[in-house]
Amino acid sequence: MKTDLDRLMSARRLDALVIVGGEDYSPLRDYLTQGVHIGRELILKKHGAAPLLIVGGMELDEARKSGLAVRTYADLGYLDLLQSAGGDVLKAGVAFWGRALAEIGITSGRVGVYGRGDVNYFIVFIDLLREAYPAVQFVGEAGLTLFDEAMLTKDEDEIARLKSVAERTVSVIEATWNYIAGHRLAADETVVQPDGTPLTVGDVKRFVIRELLERGLEDTDMIFAQGRDAGYPHSRGAAGDVLRAGRSIVFDLFPREMGGGYYHDMTRTWCIGYAPPAVQAAYDDVLTAFEMAVEAFGAGKKTHLVQEAVLNYFEARGHQTARSHPGTLEGYVHSLGHGVGLNIHERPGITHLRQEDSFQPGNCITLEPGLYYPEQGFGVRVEDLFVVTAAGELVSLTPFRKDLVIPMLPAEPPA
Amino acid sequence: MKTDLDRLMSARRLDALVIVGGEDYSPLRDYLTQGVHIGRELILKKHGAAPLLIVGGMELDEARKSGLAVRTYADLGYLDLLQSAGGDVLKAGVAFWGRALAEIGITSGRVGVYGRGDVNYFIVFIDLLREAYPAVQFVGEAGLTLFDEAMLTKDEDEIARLKSVAERTVSVIEATWNYIAGHRLAADETVVQPDGTPLTVGDVKRFVIRELLERGLEDTDMIFAQGRDAGYPHSRGAAGDVLRAGRSIVFDLFPREMGGGYYHDMTRTWCIGYAPPAVQAAYDDVLTAFEMAVEAFGAGKKTHLVQEAVLNYFEARGHQTARSHPGTLEGYVHSLGHGVGLNIHERPGITHLRQEDSFQPGNCITLEPGLYYPEQGFGVRVEDLFVVTAAGELVSLTPFRKDLVIPMLPAEPPA
Repeated sequence: MKTDLDRLMSARRLDALVIVGGEDYSPLRDYLTQGVHIGRELILKKHGAAPLLIVGGMELDEARKSGLAVRTYADLGYLDLLQSAGGDVLKAGVAFWGRALAEIGITSGRVGVYGRGDVNYFIVFIDLLREAYPAVQFVGEAGLTLFDEAMLTKDEDEIARLKSVAERTVSVIEATWNYIAGHRLAADETVVQPDGTPLTVGDVKRFVIRELLERGLEDTDMIFAQGRDAGYPHSRGAAGDVLRAGRSIVFDLFPREMGGGYYHDMTRTWCIGYAPPAVQAAYDDVLTAFEMAVEAFGAGKKTHLVQEAVLNYFEARGHQTARSHPGTLEGYVHSLGHGVGLNIHERPGITHLRQEDSFQPGNCITLEPGLYYPEQGFGVRVEDLFVVTAAGELVSLTPFRKDLVIPMLPAEPPA
Repeated sequence: MKTDLDRLMSARRLDALVIVGGEDYSPLRDYLTQGVHIGRELILKKHGAAPLLIVGGMELDEARKSGLAVRTYADLGYLDLLQSAGGDVLKAGVAFWGRALAEIGITSGRVGVYGRGDVNYFIVFIDLLREAYPAVQFVGEAGLTLFDEAMLTKDEDEIARLKSVAERTVSVIEATWNYIAGHRLAADETVVQPDGTPLTVGDVKRFVIRELLERGLEDTDMIFAQGRDAGYPHSRGAAGDVLRAGRSIVFDLFPREMGGGYYHDMTRTWCIGYAPPAVQAAYDDVLTAFEMAVEAFGAGKKTHLVQEAVLNYFEARGHQTARSHPGTLEGYVHSLGHGVGLNIHERPGITHLRQEDSFQPGNCITLEPGLYYPEQGFGVRVEDLFVVTAAGELVSLTPFRKDLVIPMLPAEPPA
């Protein structure tokens, strides 16, 4: 949790953090500033002290909404530094970091640098920082980083936001089911609109985006993929594809708060009108795997054990898996789930390839078994988002029915 | 342009490029792959050869739409490397880069690393790469990078996409004007909806987002800021703020193609019903400055000269500027413009702080003078997006009227 930052810094022997931000939405900025809408900021945090936010003068008004102490680049003399550097932005930047670190009382020690940025820039910049400030160790971090670790467990405010996004997302899924069910099937089994034109994947996606918007959510590239496309877990679906009865549709919706913020992540598989036997059989296996995963869950338990239970089941049912056939594109080809928060994919991971993660109270995680048979023209997946309560219970935030078939009205009698 | 990549590599003595991608939208990915929807990819380009795209197996179907040669991580043996590394993702990643570079024929020489990623990760990763492959120089780049330079000039396909986004954005601005003008003023000069409730900044923003969506565009955090908020150039505006007659409203809209892509960037300043004399006077100065900037433009000319013409004018009119009073928050506080493409802010910059940029055919740039008086409760800005044609002409992509006042219907007679 956010309140663990000093403890996590101690564990890494870090005297300070510098978090960089570019022009894009930044999860770490959101995490530390209550989601203010700024860019090109620096956030500095000394161990044991509250963070300092440094922004351009034009961002000042927004930045103050963070509740943090705020200084501008100009306050700290950036323009003089730029002049002294003869207009060289890189040199001025190096000098400015020294000044900003001094502002929080750091002239030596270990400084962890975090955030998302242009890799090419920071390769150059870190080399220059190290040269300019030999008394300071500038360090990065891979693997389970300080912020990954903090974000593993959500506080009450975060859970409240996640629940709100979840309720709105479920309501959009319900609206989408009703939208599709409100159409009719033509004689050739295509889904048609009242004016007789076919209903496409693009039409459905536009409907979904509008419904999200009405609820203050934004799409982040949903999957609505039919038939063979559904057989590739990350195929987004083709906008021009006409909806047809009897094809599996994988609908994976992972919107977030408008403008950036907390995510939801859920998947349903639907067949319009009826389900072919092969799709139904795979779907039954996936539903069983989903229920097994929920059963196998336990607070404190290693996450890979739950994935392994699912792998055992799928393999016993005769499916290839990412364990039995590494790299396979048929069968159960991915991990069982992941953490969700200000990032769509967070720790813990729930995969046989990662032995060290455990479930713990405050986790917000997906469970999402699936089976993929692109050559047979289908794929199926089911995914709910769960929180692990303080009591160690697994509670779904995605209470939407898992029916496979959307019943359709009979076709209009021919005119 | 994209076709200049080999020339730009030669100028930097680069034998190869590696472009990294995370889970978010990546402008460089879009630039090199025709905008396919993938994540966690690596793109490698040897000098003189076409790029190679490496993705996870689940992304294969989408990745093939790029038209590039595609391999999966599994194809290149990532899973074996992970096993050999005892599950250490970082070690396996270092080994994989060696294998991927060998795949394009690179075992020594200079390799430029580009793209957006987690800075903390790459600080660690680059150190390890350098240690593991001493025959390869892994270099970054700051300042005007290879891709900044390529993107300075747009090709015909890019200009066509920019024009299409421009037309749709202008149509949304028109619709927003009509939407506001379709309301009435109450006796207290607030703008009211047909049911008598006040019209807020949040209502207008939701309207704008819906209109963008209908046209296949997405908002990227528009500014619709009234009164004192308009006096801070980057204040987004407060959602609960009720629209009132006689306040300056800065409406800066910079949407992009849905899901990531080319941007438009334009600003209008509006006063509902009437403009107070101080706002009108500042607006007249800004319009004059805008026209001066268009006049001062010339293909081949240094960009800072145009900013300096505008600075001279504003200073002669008695306004403080970022040149006369560095760091000021009153008067003309920012640069005159910037390039626009797959990033909202690209080179060339049009500022007195950057002497080296020149205008050239294929540029797509904004001109956006503004004046800010937050203590007096207003700010004004006008911004169009332009392309520089092959003939060196400056052509606006933003043909929307620059009227300050939105005329309103008279108030309803009291019941």
